[in-house]
Amino acid sequence: MENESFITMPKGFKANGVSAGMKCEDPANINKDDPKSSYLDVALVVSDVPASIAGVYTSNLVKGHSLERTISKISSGNKVRGIIVNSKNANACVGAVGREDADLIASKVAEGLGCTADEIMTASTGVIGDRLPVEKITKVIPGLVEGLSAEEETAHLAEYAMMTTDTVPKEVSAVLTLADGSEVKIAGMAKGSGMIHPNLATMIGIFTTDADIDKGLLQKMLKDAVSHTFNRVSVDGDTSVCDMVVIMANGQSGQKIEEGSEDAQIFSEALTSLSLDIARMLASDGEGATKLIEIEVSGAASAEDAKLIVTSVARSPLCKTAFFGMDANCGRIMTAVGYSGAKFDPYKIDIDLGDLPVYRDGCALPFDEEEADRILHEHDINVKIMLHEGEYGDRMFTCDFSYDYVKINGSYRS
Amino acid sequence: MENESFITMPKGFKANGVSAGMKCEDPANINKDDPKSSYLDVALVVSDVPASIAGVYTSNLVKGHSLERTISKISSGNKVRGIIVNSKNANACVGAVGREDADLIASKVAEGLGCTADEIMTASTGVIGDRLPVEKITKVIPGLVEGLSAEEETAHLAEYAMMTTDTVPKEVSAVLTLADGSEVKIAGMAKGSGMIHPNLATMIGIFTTDADIDKGLLQKMLKDAVSHTFNRVSVDGDTSVCDMVVIMANGQSGQKIEEGSEDAQIFSEALTSLSLDIARMLASDGEGATKLIEIEVSGAASAEDAKLIVTSVARSPLCKTAFFGMDANCGRIMTAVGYSGAKFDPYKIDIDLGDLPVYRDGCALPFDEEEADRILHEHDINVKIMLHEGEYGDRMFTCDFSYDYVKINGSYRS
Repeated sequence: MENESFITMPKGFKANGVSAGMKCEDPANINKDDPKSSYLDVALVVSDVPASIAGVYTSNLVKGHSLERTISKISSGNKVRGIIVNSKNANACVGAVGREDADLIASKVAEGLGCTADEIMTASTGVIGDRLPVEKITKVIPGLVEGLSAEEETAHLAEYAMMTTDTVPKEVSAVLTLADGSEVKIAGMAKGSGMIHPNLATMIGIFTTDADIDKGLLQKMLKDAVSHTFNRVSVDGDTSVCDMVVIMANGQSGQKIEEGSEDAQIFSEALTSLSLDIARMLASDGEGATKLIEIEVSGAASAEDAKLIVTSVARSPLCKTAFFGMDANCGRIMTAVGYSGAKFDPYKIDIDLGDLPVYRDGCALPFDEEEADRILHEHDINVKIMLHEGEYGDRMFTCDFSYDYVKINGSYRS
Repeated sequence: MENESFITMPKGFKANGVSAGMKCEDPANINKDDPKSSYLDVALVVSDVPASIAGVYTSNLVKGHSLERTISKISSGNKVRGIIVNSKNANACVGAVGREDADLIASKVAEGLGCTADEIMTASTGVIGDRLPVEKITKVIPGLVEGLSAEEETAHLAEYAMMTTDTVPKEVSAVLTLADGSEVKIAGMAKGSGMIHPNLATMIGIFTTDADIDKGLLQKMLKDAVSHTFNRVSVDGDTSVCDMVVIMANGQSGQKIEEGSEDAQIFSEALTSLSLDIARMLASDGEGATKLIEIEVSGAASAEDAKLIVTSVARSPLCKTAFFGMDANCGRIMTAVGYSGAKFDPYKIDIDLGDLPVYRDGCALPFDEEEADRILHEHDINVKIMLHEGEYGDRMFTCDFSYDYVKINGSYRS
């Protein structure tokens, strides 16, 4: 997807991002011409009219207070007006006050928009266990609402304000042509870099669309899209307490998408494809990452086995450090396949590194080290594992483990 | 345990370690006065008389050929004379020739000792997927056998010869006083540093005892000892294809230990205690480790929940990099507990870092950063997680994730 993607491309959405001084104490020092992730820390995305909303959340039993609030609002089934996101602080594990702070922030936004607090979703990402600086945030909300715009430049500010250890913004969009020739748009943006592992990651993803889609169908399509994309990204095997992906559908294109229709198929495929693009961006921008690694399994006896194997290889620190070192230590891939918990005959496994066969029938091949070296020096590396046990396959995106991963995470809080 | 421990302390055992030039090409360059792990690569431990043997092995579906051979020999139930171990090469994933190589090595040892090849166990550890340099190894076997000795100095050579990325030897011993006042001895040695995770690790552990113990009881006692010690060490969550812990009991003390007796209890406790000592050494000597971290869980609703939680925290890269950075980012511990898969009420969890309470009722406490800093600067760090759900507990040893872990594993093969 091109850089010109932005969250307000679908009709009837506005966005903005401002600094509440959480990332950068003195906003006076900020260079306004350089809207970087280093100082913007509060993002808002709103629909002009109430929109259907669907959401998918972290499977972590410990959930952040902003997220818990959003889950309860979305489950109510009511339409919403928007979502406010802050970075730098996860609003998690601080007790009852965490929910009160999220409620207060939502009501300040609602006040500015002239809607109810129940129509405003909340999301927080950052350090766990510190109370939100709620006064700082509420103080900037009037300006945040005032500055809402559908303009591309302003919309990008929302993405920058969500970013934590991300090094690049992650925005996608698509214009879909429906069966009758009419058009609807989808746009998405996300943050996420470390603590990323299936179900979900330390990621927040927001999609907007001007299609008119009922909540039930929207939820189904989002869940499908997430299961093969965001739930197939692993940076470090950690799963955070704040993750969510939401989609708001405000119907402003005038096009209704009905369950079971060809249009639903078109929309669903587009949403999955955009999610896949973001998933690849997340893995590629993993903390300290120098490589994007795609692990593919085919021929597994069951879908569960295929998933166990891609997960095991994608989270193996030994495989990930070998990719960082560009060392064709493929025995570590065999090892991770072996301890995955999947059932298979170890003497039937084939493994390819890129196009280079490195294992056949469970045995290491003498391979061309120069060719392996060339493959490992690429930014995108593909590993194919073929089990020859059945018809199931799976795929996962990950990145390497570098010195910088250790550096970033040894001092994240401070 | 003291440094004067060595594998031949029990009566009737001899050991030796030599160089086959796998770690260091030209043995002529070796400083014989400095028996370090950097050049010794073949170890042998033998009993003067046939000994009962018990073993516990990796749960990895992919198993090294030397290990597979040993499993089949031990399962036969026959007594054995010894075990030969090589480092630098795992003898794994090379096909049928791997088993033939292990057979050949065992028969060369048997020839020297005047026993059958079936009485010689084999173990290999190192890089996966390269064929063993079997000529190099068989060439040094006569000298290896010839040099066997019960002397402490020679016995230590066996330990050095097993080491791969280990930085310190790991040897333990105990003299047990049985119910009737007589004595038996146990000694143990191990290698293991990276690719260490429960069930088992890239570890090889060898115990010897001069007690007379039947195979069935010996197996039971070894399994008990391993389950709470070696199976509770995690360096990086990876589980190798070559791991084994064996114990040989040759009866040379003249003391028989019967199942259900007080002596069996004494022996079993000693074996567990020695295993625990080695387990702590393994975690402490984890690749690149600067810290030994003990994760304790209490009050879990089930043993399975307790194990899920200690495992989840011990393998979390985010927790391990925070320990390396000595950053009291305890929200990451809460996060890892939350995604462990265990069932509990997140609003009842208490967490202590050393003696410092950092979470109560699932909420982060404002704690003394100076005190946390002092605790995190210690080499040994204890984390206590209290769930208040039931009566089950567990414990796991791990280490931090450092720049050196990445460095060691980014270039291990070369």
